[in-house]
Amino acid sequence: MTQYKEIKAEILAIGDELLYGQIMDTNSHWISQELDKIGVRVVRRTTVGDNRDAMLSAFESAEKIADIILITGGLGPTNDDLTKPLLAEYFNCELALVPEALEAVRTFFEKRGRELTDTNKLQAHLPTKCIYIPNELGTAPGMWFQENGKIWMSMPGVPHEMKRLMSDHVIPRIKENFTLPHIYHKVIKTVGIGESWLSDLIQNWEKNLPKHIKLAYLPSLGQVKLRLTAFGDDMDQITNDVENEITKVKPLIDKYIFGYNQETLEEAIGRLLRTNGKKVAFAESCSGGYITHLVTTVPGSSDYFQGSMVPYHNHFKNKLLHVDQNTLKEHGAVSEATVIQMAENIKTMFEADFGLASSGIAGPGGGWKEKPVGTVWIACAMNGKTITKKLQLTQDRMLNIQLTGVAVLNMLRLCIEGKTE
Amino acid sequence: MTQYKEIKAEILAIGDELLYGQIMDTNSHWISQELDKIGVRVVRRTTVGDNRDAMLSAFESAEKIADIILITGGLGPTNDDLTKPLLAEYFNCELALVPEALEAVRTFFEKRGRELTDTNKLQAHLPTKCIYIPNELGTAPGMWFQENGKIWMSMPGVPHEMKRLMSDHVIPRIKENFTLPHIYHKVIKTVGIGESWLSDLIQNWEKNLPKHIKLAYLPSLGQVKLRLTAFGDDMDQITNDVENEITKVKPLIDKYIFGYNQETLEEAIGRLLRTNGKKVAFAESCSGGYITHLVTTVPGSSDYFQGSMVPYHNHFKNKLLHVDQNTLKEHGAVSEATVIQMAENIKTMFEADFGLASSGIAGPGGGWKEKPVGTVWIACAMNGKTITKKLQLTQDRMLNIQLTGVAVLNMLRLCIEGKTE
Repeated sequence: MTQYKEIKAEILAIGDELLYGQIMDTNSHWISQELDKIGVRVVRRTTVGDNRDAMLSAFESAEKIADIILITGGLGPTNDDLTKPLLAEYFNCELALVPEALEAVRTFFEKRGRELTDTNKLQAHLPTKCIYIPNELGTAPGMWFQENGKIWMSMPGVPHEMKRLMSDHVIPRIKENFTLPHIYHKVIKTVGIGESWLSDLIQNWEKNLPKHIKLAYLPSLGQVKLRLTAFGDDMDQITNDVENEITKVKPLIDKYIFGYNQETLEEAIGRLLRTNGKKVAFAESCSGGYITHLVTTVPGSSDYFQGSMVPYHNHFKNKLLHVDQNTLKEHGAVSEATVIQMAENIKTMFEADFGLASSGIAGPGGGWKEKPVGTVWIACAMNGKTITKKLQLTQDRMLNIQLTGVAVLNMLRLCIEGKTE
Repeated sequence: MTQYKEIKAEILAIGDELLYGQIMDTNSHWISQELDKIGVRVVRRTTVGDNRDAMLSAFESAEKIADIILITGGLGPTNDDLTKPLLAEYFNCELALVPEALEAVRTFFEKRGRELTDTNKLQAHLPTKCIYIPNELGTAPGMWFQENGKIWMSMPGVPHEMKRLMSDHVIPRIKENFTLPHIYHKVIKTVGIGESWLSDLIQNWEKNLPKHIKLAYLPSLGQVKLRLTAFGDDMDQITNDVENEITKVKPLIDKYIFGYNQETLEEAIGRLLRTNGKKVAFAESCSGGYITHLVTTVPGSSDYFQGSMVPYHNHFKNKLLHVDQNTLKEHGAVSEATVIQMAENIKTMFEADFGLASSGIAGPGGGWKEKPVGTVWIACAMNGKTITKKLQLTQDRMLNIQLTGVAVLNMLRLCIEGKTE
């Protein structure tokens, strides 16, 4: 990619409502994704309020670091919307009526059987240096500027209007104006190992990565994503380069890889169960239905998910899940003996191939010396054998529920794949 | 409040994954809301990648415009994380081992029965000019700097770790260090009514709100929050003003109010069940354990939550939940007759005062002309009677699961409060 000049973009979001946290800025996130797809590198995103000085200095600063500046917001007809006058000031030109734009606004209101107000007519007054870009879904037009080899585009903050302008006008025009590098991303999704242990396992491979491939660790609850990104002039070449590196790293961490790119752990579980023609059921105590919820968010999960029970008290673990009274008395609900029976019984009741169980102390209350908050037993019963695992988690209830969920789904994955020790 | 110097903040988010659009930056949005609540004005939000020059110039620029600079991300133990070394460079100091921090990391791993790696030990090396802020939920410590009257705080990008650090340390320390305007917020939480209907009901009250009280509608899934915000010099005065307005508006929307401020719907349910000494159980089909999950996220829910069953197929609805074969044959699983039996049987099995049931077509598949995707029946069985409701929801599976959850919990709330028609 060295022969390419990297094309850099900054995304500017304008609006007090963003800075006050009243509206979440999903626009900048979406634009980042769209630019990433075509190999434009977003180098910064900035959000400023409806404020003259803040906006003008954001314009200046953006022009210094970016080839493309995409602006959303501040285009309403009201006085607190400053983007248009300030762009005119910044590019040192006047606002003038654009008949085509006025016609568009008029039509927009006619279609809705509404009268055109003077305030709305003002929306057809645009900086003389900009190219008018029609906004079919709203009244604030897009404005395209080209100055000193830099491209500026101002768009309304309303997401569906902005998205239409991006797809129909901005992306195609960017492709016309710049020679863009090819870019290839692949994400390896791992579970059951922390970021630092993962990096210890693959450090030699990481050291030897070719210069045009970048590695990023993206940790989330109980999972770590490894993102490989390659830039180059030949798409097939960089795709092969990345896939080759994945072939090299896979054996080092094979046991922890559950999928690639967008696939979630629960989707991977679904894929494995479906392809193996197996069914699953869950007996959840401390995880309180969370695992079942994850599994059933996947479309088509009814093909392999049989059902679940959440017996939250010993009485019901015995009465409805048929866990032996004495086992509960002698070992307690949070014990290996109990989760084994929970897993085996739920498997039988729901006629499943795999029965999984969780029992633990989610907290914040209920812990004691021998079994502190965060103590969790999980089990997976399958034909022939039942495996168990003890987890020592955190003091945080929600975190304990989520981490138990990840651990149980990972245990199921390893059982289906026959990767258990 | 004019007598106060306005305290300005910039929020810096660090990470290529944000600029690539692979992770949505929800942190900056959340931090904006928290700062807004205490009267700190967020003047800019900036996102830059894991890049030395970009980060250093973001630091410089932030120091020029803000009194408080809050930084998230770039704190992992791996090589692509630069925040810590660059802060040391920016503040012109060394990284040195902080024994307290090392102890915290060690304990964090011991609790999980894991060995401390060298990579992890590095996380205890901090810039000598920073105050070490312990992160109970992760291994990357918070770092607090105070230089030339400006405050800097660096936090991990993992949302739950950042939120804990903000609530326990950053917000209190900001209040200590600055004189902030008096602000009183109160949020009225409603469920079961749309934003526009709500605004119709309260429009006259809203028109007559005193100038120093601002009203914001904050809609979320199936719920609408009404946030009243008063600014002033006298805290008692503005508190009374807001409470007076709430006394006025309450009768207009009483049936829809489930709580105030931070209380969630599932927490309100828990409060109502506990104070009334009642127990609850759920039979979930289309909601797939989601309702049970919500209820069990609340600490102490074992006091009133008995248990749940998720029988995902007719066979198990009959075999394990004892729904009549003929009912299932004649009316189908998604029918009033079926949810009535599901609710009444789960109530009996789990010896509860309230038995709730959901059965519907979450989608995307499984719908047909008479029962399109989004058709959901819900029921609540209590002593003496069972009430039902039919919902026509969306085409989106996840949305249907969530909206069913809100509808069932709201039905339970109205039953406990005796507010059902």
